[in-house]
Amino acid sequence: MSVSPGSVSGMHKSRIGGLFIDHPPESFEASLAFWAAATGREAEQRDDPGYPYRSLGRFDGELLVELQRVGEGTEPRVHLDVDTDDVEAEVARLERLGARRLREVEDGRFWQMVDPGGIVFCVIPPHTPDFDEKATVWE
Amino acid sequence: MSVSPGSVSGMHKSRIGGLFIDHPPESFEASLAFWAAATGREAEQRDDPGYPYRSLGRFDGELLVELQRVGEGTEPRVHLDVDTDDVEAEVARLERLGARRLREVEDGRFWQMVDPGGIVFCVIPPHTPDFDEKATVWE
Repeated sequence: MSVSPGSVSGMHKSRIGGLFIDHPPESFEASLAFWAAATGREAEQRDDPGYPYRSLGRFDGELLVELQRVGEGTEPRVHLDVDTDDVEAEVARLERLGARRLREVEDGRFWQMVDPGGIVFCVIPPHTPDFDEKATVWE
Repeated sequence: MSVSPGSVSGMHKSRIGGLFIDHPPESFEASLAFWAAATGREAEQRDDPGYPYRSLGRFDGELLVELQRVGEGTEPRVHLDVDTDDVEAEVARLERLGARRLREVEDGRFWQMVDPGGIVFCVIPPHTPDFDEKATVWE
């Protein structure tokens, strides 16, 4: 982590820079293995078993950010989209890695799935023009 | 949204491409206004009041992705980090926009805050080397 100098004459900077997938001990290892395989990354190794973070590294490219109005009384949350050029093939790949199908949306245009610990995410056609350049190829 | 052709000879691609901040109707408008101001974006206008999505646009640059082991029995979730070169100034700016301080972490190295609908996020020194180039300047 790099820390820049503090503000000069009242100016400072900010951006969305990190995304954390938080799991209690009972689902942590299975979900770590799932997200590492899902993104094609090697999970960071740590000697200290008490250290709570395991990095999957930095992901470069455009990220679409949207607010979604969900049903009354629903618990507020953040969720991820996994963009793909083949929804059915990607859903099947993620199922083999330990995710579960939750709900098909808009006549199969995309799927809601849950990771091994129950976190909801979507598998959906690409949102960004840099998809082809930045996506990982699965054979 | 662009949709690429389907798989060719069993190959397909995927990546993390979208981040959604989901709020029920009771906290949706306040949180939309908060995140638009927090990121310096204009929220997308929609004629159809029933349409549930409001885009803040695409954000370019590196995103750190990590798994975090949280306390036993804690509900699994995804959370965001707002990276900044001046934690106190950014926390104060976000408070003025409607967020609340929740908990100071590691002797003030970073703060946990909640958005107007109660979603937890952190305000923390930069995680990525492209921070200076990609961050928004606040005066």
